[in-house]
Formats: sequence, C-alpha cells, structure tokens
Amino acid sequence: MAAEAFVFDAYGTLYDVHSVAARCESYWPGKGASVSQLWRAKQLEYTWQRSLMRRYEPFSSVTRAALSYACAALRLELEGAQVDALMEEYTRLALYPEARAALSRLRGKKAILSNGSPDMLLPLVENSALPFDAVMSVDEVKVFKPAPEVYELAVHRLRTEAIAFVSANCWDALGAKSYGFTVYWINRARAPIDRLGFEPDAVLTSLDEVLQ
Amino acid sequence: MAAEAFVFDAYGTLYDVHSVAARCESYWPGKGASVSQLWRAKQLEYTWQRSLMRRYEPFSSVTRAALSYACAALRLELEGAQVDALMEEYTRLALYPEARAALSRLRGKKAILSNGSPDMLLPLVENSALPFDAVMSVDEVKVFKPAPEVYELAVHRLRTEAIAFVSANCWDALGAKSYGFTVYWINRARAPIDRLGFEPDAVLTSLDEVLQ
Repeated sequence: MAAEAFVFDAYGTLYDVHSVAARCESYWPGKGASVSQLWRAKQLEYTWQRSLMRRYEPFSSVTRAALSYACAALRLELEGAQVDALMEEYTRLALYPEARAALSRLRGKKAILSNGSPDMLLPLVENSALPFDAVMSVDEVKVFKPAPEVYELAVHRLRTEAIAFVSANCWDALGAKSYGFTVYWINRARAPIDRLGFEPDAVLTSLDEVLQ
Repeated sequence: MAAEAFVFDAYGTLYDVHSVAARCESYWPGKGASVSQLWRAKQLEYTWQRSLMRRYEPFSSVTRAALSYACAALRLELEGAQVDALMEEYTRLALYPEARAALSRLRGKKAILSNGSPDMLLPLVENSALPFDAVMSVDEVKVFKPAPEVYELAVHRLRTEAIAFVSANCWDALGAKSYGFTVYWINRARAPIDRLGFEPDAVLTSLDEVLQ
C-alpha cells in the first residue's frame, strides 16, 4: 500500500528538543546538558503517568512541571522569568539539519502529529516556516502518545489509512506500529530498539532516507 | 478516617530492586550499577508505554524485555542463563532493613498491591516470609500503575475504602492519591516530589514512620 500521507512526530524528530541546552547552560553553567536531559526525560514520564492517571494536562503545563522537577533535582534555582524564556525557546527549537530539504522532496500530504499542545506547537511550526497540510495535537483527544486514540486522530483528520508515520522516538514509532501504521523509526543515535513487541517497517538514520 | 488497611507497594518500597546490582556486577565488572539503574528505568517505561498502547504483558515479560534493552544499550553480552539467574534474583530481593519490624508493629490489615505478576511476586513475598493478608497484582486488571483500575482493585479485594497506601515510588503514591487513597510517600533518597498535580498526605523517610 503506497502512503498517501506522511505523518511526522515533532519533538525529537523534526525539531531538536535539546537545542534548549544552550540557554540552560547560560543560566546554570556546567549544567545545561543535564537540565535539558532530565527536563526531557521527566516531560515524557509525566505524559505517560498523567495519561494513565486520566489526569491529562496540556503539554505546555507538563513541560513547565518537568522543568521545575529537573531544576529541583539538580538543586538549581529556577525563576519565573527563566521558565518563560525557556518555554519561549521551545517555540524556536532548531530543525534537524536535513529536515527542510527532506520534507520539500516528499510528494503526498505531509502532517505533524504531536504531543505538543497548540499553544506550543503552532508557534513552533510557524517559526520554522515548514509547509504542512495538517498540524495535529493530542490535545484534541486529551491523552498522550502512545495511546491508540492519538494515531486514530490522524486517520480521521487526514481521511486515509494509508499513512506512513515517522518518529525518532522509538516508543512512539512502535505505538504507531501497534495501531497499524507503516512506520519509519529515525534512529540518529544508533540506539537499541525498544522491546515493546513491535518492529518498525524500516530503521533510518536521518529524515533524508524517508524518501527512499 | 482511620485506616482499616495498609497497602504497600512492593518493588522499591518493601524490596530493594537494586539488590540485583551485585549479580550484575559479577557478570559485567564495573557496570553492575549502570545495568541495574537502566534495567529499572526501562522496566517502568515499558509498563507505562504498554499500558497506553493497550498491549499489557505480565511484569515478568516486561522485566526480561527491559533487561535485554539495558544490556544492548550498554553494549554488554547477555546470555539466556544470565537472564534466568537475574530473574531468580528478582524473587529474592533484599528487604529494606526496617521493613520487617515496621510491618510487625502495624495493626490492621496489611496487603501488597504491585505491578509484579504472580510468577514473580508470590515467590518474592514467600521468600521474604512477610505476613500479608492479601497480595494483589495488577495482573488481575491487565494494566499497570498508576491507572485508577489498579488502586480500585485494592478497594474491591479488601472491601474497604479506608486504605492508607504506602509507596516509595512518588508517581505511584500520587496515582493512589489521585484515585482517592490516603497516601504516604517514602522518600528515602530525599528526592523532589513529582509535579503531577497531587501531594501525598505525608512524606516519610522510612517505613518506621508509617506507624506514627
């Protein structure tokens, strides 16, 4: 089945979440990378835990909460103005270097399906000036990835089941595979595959290879 | 409301999951602690991700899968006999030093509510010779903590809502609080509280303090 639509994860796949590390480093010299890593790890944990607790909150709230935890765990002072500035950074994350050219070469519908709430996600996509046919947020279904309702949202919105889903987050790729999509896992870090009972249709090292 | 039953989490609360590190160290010198840490982290991630994917598998399968991932990520060879031996270790985890005496002083029903599947959990409790009125596994409801169905299981099985829930896993304590239990978080590591929108009724530093 040829893909009629390419659906991309945003954070970690098109946009480098760790591009916040530079500003973190300016606030907490020597700790920028640690803050960024723990912030991201907790952000994801909270999405899974809140989903299971049935206590969904928008990704912007979860992201602020995770930053607060990360700084407390690393014993770093965090001021309100720093939270605001770092959340602003999240709307200007760096694109992965190959993303723009790779997307421009793809034929068919192109869309984003992201945990990001519209208040974070829409400015990010707009600031990066990438052309998408649809930008879909889990906020419509009030549960985070990898719940099947999330992937189903793309089927409903794009009106096709012939979807190729692209994510650099292995668990997201496998969640999409479990749902039924054709899945490409972008494994930039050459990490082991997650043992979740599913395999991606292809493991790629960059977005360039999606075309092939 | 006085508690009619004390319900304890098992892994990390009564039993030290990192007591597997010694055997890991014997297999992979210099890497025992790293294996144990990553194994535990992935074990939990997989419980959350599989629950959200609606692809429940028993904790014993998830635990084996997480060990496989951890060794692959750390580029360590893992043989079948080592998996079996480490899974056997999981049925003989060390009790936290204060656990036995603290439990013996508690009046009222005492129970365990654990992610552990019966094939792992029942031998562990039996080997530790702790007296419980009930040992409850999420395997009955086929979803992992912190889903509310898990905490509800304790209400049904113990036939009381007057439950004091005790966990050293903050997200588990807060999941139980979200469900409606009185909750004691055992914070042995003096970690920050997770930002999940709930607070425990008390933060304790050891099981001894549950009595007070």
